[in-house]
Amino acid sequence: MESATTISQELFTTNNLWILISTAFVFIMHLGFACVESGFVQKKNVINIIFKNTMIPAIGLLTYAIMGFNLMYPGADFAGGFFGFAGFGISTDEAGLTSAYNPGYTYWSDFIFQGMFAATCATIVSGAVAERIKLVPFFIFTIIFVMLIYPIIGMWHWGGGWLKVAGFHDFAGSSLVHSVGGWGALAGAIVLGPRIGKFVGNSVRPIPGHSIPLATIGVFLLWFGWYGFNGGSVLSADPALLSLVFVTTSLGAAAGAVTAFFTSYFMFKSYDVSMVLNGILGGLVGITAGADVITPMESIIIGGIAGILIPFSVVFFDKIKIDDPVGATSVHLVCGVWGTLATGIFGEGKSLVSQLIGVGAIGAFAFGTAFLIFYILKVTTGIRVTEDYEERGLDITEHEMEAYKI
Amino acid sequence: MESATTISQELFTTNNLWILISTAFVFIMHLGFACVESGFVQKKNVINIIFKNTMIPAIGLLTYAIMGFNLMYPGADFAGGFFGFAGFGISTDEAGLTSAYNPGYTYWSDFIFQGMFAATCATIVSGAVAERIKLVPFFIFTIIFVMLIYPIIGMWHWGGGWLKVAGFHDFAGSSLVHSVGGWGALAGAIVLGPRIGKFVGNSVRPIPGHSIPLATIGVFLLWFGWYGFNGGSVLSADPALLSLVFVTTSLGAAAGAVTAFFTSYFMFKSYDVSMVLNGILGGLVGITAGADVITPMESIIIGGIAGILIPFSVVFFDKIKIDDPVGATSVHLVCGVWGTLATGIFGEGKSLVSQLIGVGAIGAFAFGTAFLIFYILKVTTGIRVTEDYEERGLDITEHEMEAYKI
Amino acid sequence: MESATTISQELFTTNNLWILISTAFVFIMHLGFACVESGFVQKKNVINIIFKNTMIPAIGLLTYAIMGFNLMYPGADFAGGFFGFAGFGISTDEAGLTSAYNPGYTYWSDFIFQGMFAATCATIVSGAVAERIKLVPFFIFTIIFVMLIYPIIGMWHWGGGWLKVAGFHDFAGSSLVHSVGGWGALAGAIVLGPRIGKFVGNSVRPIPGHSIPLATIGVFLLWFGWYGFNGGSVLSADPALLSLVFVTTSLGAAAGAVTAFFTSYFMFKSYDVSMVLNGILGGLVGITAGADVITPMESIIIGGIAGILIPFSVVFFDKIKIDDPVGATSVHLVCGVWGTLATGIFGEGKSLVSQLIGVGAIGAFAFGTAFLIFYILKVTTGIRVTEDYEERGLDITEHEMEAYKI
Repeated sequence: MESATTISQELFTTNNLWILISTAFVFIMHLGFACVESGFVQKKNVINIIFKNTMIPAIGLLTYAIMGFNLMYPGADFAGGFFGFAGFGISTDEAGLTSAYNPGYTYWSDFIFQGMFAATCATIVSGAVAERIKLVPFFIFTIIFVMLIYPIIGMWHWGGGWLKVAGFHDFAGSSLVHSVGGWGALAGAIVLGPRIGKFVGNSVRPIPGHSIPLATIGVFLLWFGWYGFNGGSVLSADPALLSLVFVTTSLGAAAGAVTAFFTSYFMFKSYDVSMVLNGILGGLVGITAGADVITPMESIIIGGIAGILIPFSVVFFDKIKIDDPVGATSVHLVCGVWGTLATGIFGEGKSLVSQLIGVGAIGAFAFGTAFLIFYILKVTTGIRVTEDYEERGLDITEHEMEAYKI
Repeated sequence: MESATTISQELFTTNNLWILISTAFVFIMHLGFACVESGFVQKKNVINIIFKNTMIPAIGLLTYAIMGFNLMYPGADFAGGFFGFAGFGISTDEAGLTSAYNPGYTYWSDFIFQGMFAATCATIVSGAVAERIKLVPFFIFTIIFVMLIYPIIGMWHWGGGWLKVAGFHDFAGSSLVHSVGGWGALAGAIVLGPRIGKFVGNSVRPIPGHSIPLATIGVFLLWFGWYGFNGGSVLSADPALLSLVFVTTSLGAAAGAVTAFFTSYFMFKSYDVSMVLNGILGGLVGITAGADVITPMESIIIGGIAGILIPFSVVFFDKIKIDDPVGATSVHLVCGVWGTLATGIFGEGKSLVSQLIGVGAIGAFAFGTAFLIFYILKVTTGIRVTEDYEERGLDITEHEMEAYKI
Repeated sequence: MESATTISQELFTTNNLWILISTAFVFIMHLGFACVESGFVQKKNVINIIFKNTMIPAIGLLTYAIMGFNLMYPGADFAGGFFGFAGFGISTDEAGLTSAYNPGYTYWSDFIFQGMFAATCATIVSGAVAERIKLVPFFIFTIIFVMLIYPIIGMWHWGGGWLKVAGFHDFAGSSLVHSVGGWGALAGAIVLGPRIGKFVGNSVRPIPGHSIPLATIGVFLLWFGWYGFNGGSVLSADPALLSLVFVTTSLGAAAGAVTAFFTSYFMFKSYDVSMVLNGILGGLVGITAGADVITPMESIIIGGIAGILIPFSVVFFDKIKIDDPVGATSVHLVCGVWGTLATGIFGEGKSLVSQLIGVGAIGAFAFGTAFLIFYILKVTTGIRVTEDYEERGLDITEHEMEAYKI
């Protein structure tokens, strides 16, 4: 990367443009999540999940402007790299608008690119708690998780905190984004309990999603958006690195699809489209931590193993009776952890020990705080809709509307 | 902005690339409109609205090539800044292909970016007149409105005409695009009258849309496309200005969602997803006039007020018995006017008086001509389908097809 | 184009960025195909087509990494420009990461952009053989077609082979991509035979698609992606050429919509949305061979003729009892051939004779090999599902799932 004092206005302009285009790509991932999650839930809960996934990026952007950005990038390091805060609101200082701020982007580009990421972790949670959580407590969780928990963890590494010092490497967020969301999803699914009728005695009753085309649109949009998620995390348009990241991201997703296809075929003897779709997402999550430090061939291995993990993980969570309607924990938590560890295994000069420390610390903090928030909400406002509401569906009971008139 | 004679080929290339990418983003807004409008109409009229919204960008691009572009950018100022015309067709002059034409883009990029905008105003109209207008008269309206009315108004400001001289400021088209479409929508809804059964005595019967997921996809695609709509209107990839525009656009949309949520909850005591979706669009429309001259904090205020206006406006138009199936007048007209005025209030060095003059002149001309066209069509070809057709739906009567076989 | 030794790092960065963004645009075309094809098939076969169209890009990227890329760009010319191979796998040589490799992109960008194209031809085939082909034989066909046939033909022109020497011009693949897919589609449709009940005696029974909104989303996403397909084929961000390509691509699509509208209206006396949608695709396919060497006005003619060809072609294939559920042969084969010939007619300095030679050679090889593969599969594994499976639908029989629970 060129130093801030010598970079040309031309390169600065191109770099900054790429960060902004990446922001738009990451934005479309919110539509991707909305489609995947609404496609995988029952018809009677479609408006509810859409309502949540529409509000989440709005809440995420506003809270990130108010304080998230300044928690994540505090600048100074008070509290030993564990916590810092640069004050409320976003700056309008002109110094942020030149390459003196950063050779890759302006202050405003920095804010909006990172802000678009921020809400993602709450979106991941919404899938796992779908079809039974009350709306307002979920939004309270979202605000706390996105405004405080996510940026504090993010600061540990991307904000220059203690994990950075410890040699941890998470390029675009297998751990910092996806596993954080995945831990929140797991905590929520545990505190809420399974949907009525999902587990009866020792048998698992499948509750199929209402629209596979909608879920498919979502997965493709997520893959598309991932080019901004990973590509923008290069933090410049550097040709060599950016083209590597596009290749590793693409091959990781492709390998995840193929291995999930074979693994699920051997396990279930059927061509299971939802496994292939989640295999793609698993491959993408898996590749995200190390997309910048591995070779194309290694990306096939990492994405491929992620695709194998998906059906095993889905069966495992069913076995221990944790009900996650869209498979968010399998995709984002399991493959997020795998991708972070894989970076320690394959990444040149990376340390598996540092990766394990990061995975453990992030998991403990994210799961612990998410569990605590959900638990406090459970004993105060309550978090689960009534049985009657759950059976009639949240669309008609909480929103007085139906998703379809077909 | 660098002067045309000194800009480097490198910056010219990056600037021009951004305008072309923005063109693709604005294109996807046409899909966004198609999804929003088809999602919000009844199942029996889905093909009809899709047919219209698919033909509109095609008609818009061709008519803009034939004469719209040369009406909007006549170059010379005959008729006192009110009207000019540079002749039919688009040039293939090589002088248009270098930074001597403009440091931000080639002549061809200029044409195609502006051409992609042009059809938008007709698309806005199609939502308000949905479920009861005849196809061919609508296309006649579209051709006249897009080929003549839109570019003449556009010339007043963007083409260097009298509104430009008067100090009017409309960055990316709260007035020039959205309110023009909104006035057309209002004129069409008035001339056509309400759908059968919408207003019975003093009661308003809600006619719910057939697919909320489809409408949601549309709103997210519009938000996505807006990064090109507003971002491309910077007319270069200037890092400081472009990053500001991305921030104000994003925060405006987010604020619109949140305030529409609260406002509609207090008004209707329910979590109304269509209000939140229209709140996002209202925020985006509101922010469009001043996205380049306000601060991020002001964008939250402007977008937030737009989101408050949405449910009030929807109720108001119902009250005065104007039937707009998708809420196009509330989103594009009301919030377009609001955004234009807000620019006079918040924009540094901008004049509220100039903004009022612009809003008034544009409104008078757009509404007047649209009303006249619709009225003439009504008394000649007729514009409304028969009662029988309306009740059976336009898909089966005008297209002999059904949208779904589910 | 600047020579590799003199291009600035700034231009190289911008050029390479555009190739990568184009890659993402072409990726979204795979979602476009999935939506078009699933929208145009019956409800009972939706998961099956989605399964295929999800696996195809995954298979395509992996096989292109393993050997396709090295068949298409062998570097040396053994076998007289007809065949070459640079060895398995993709290189990690650092020499590929600078402008010394190419002033427009790195080696990795080259691979991933071309790799995203590769699977397209198999995706085209999947539409024509939908609703009756067995899954595993289709994947075997896909692997052979994408890994061998497509790159060998591609090498003839884009890899510097004998067609290049012969003066053939196919800018972005009217022939090399679309007609190759179209010939494969025709071969598959012939070997398989029509769906049960499609042709009864001399009458043709229409089998309407299950979701027009889904098909519409697909067509718009394809148009959007085409800006990367054609735009990326400029192989740099050259302002003059790139802006021309955006204009010709846009006007070609628009003209195809309008002429398909009129032609189908005069033929069938109805406003047929599927004809308009296929008219857009036909216009895009038609413009692809010559988008860089024609004028904007000529693009309207070429796209317009493509739009006229669509309804005639659909009727023709029905007449000769070739059953293509989504119209893939009409769009990709007929308009692909037309676009290639049109380049010889309109393109400055291009030769119609060279174009005819290319169309003939590509057609003979693509159709011949595709027919052979399908025929061998037919007599070995079998390629057609049982009558019982076909009538009950492939979703429930091959995938044990339903696409919708609505």
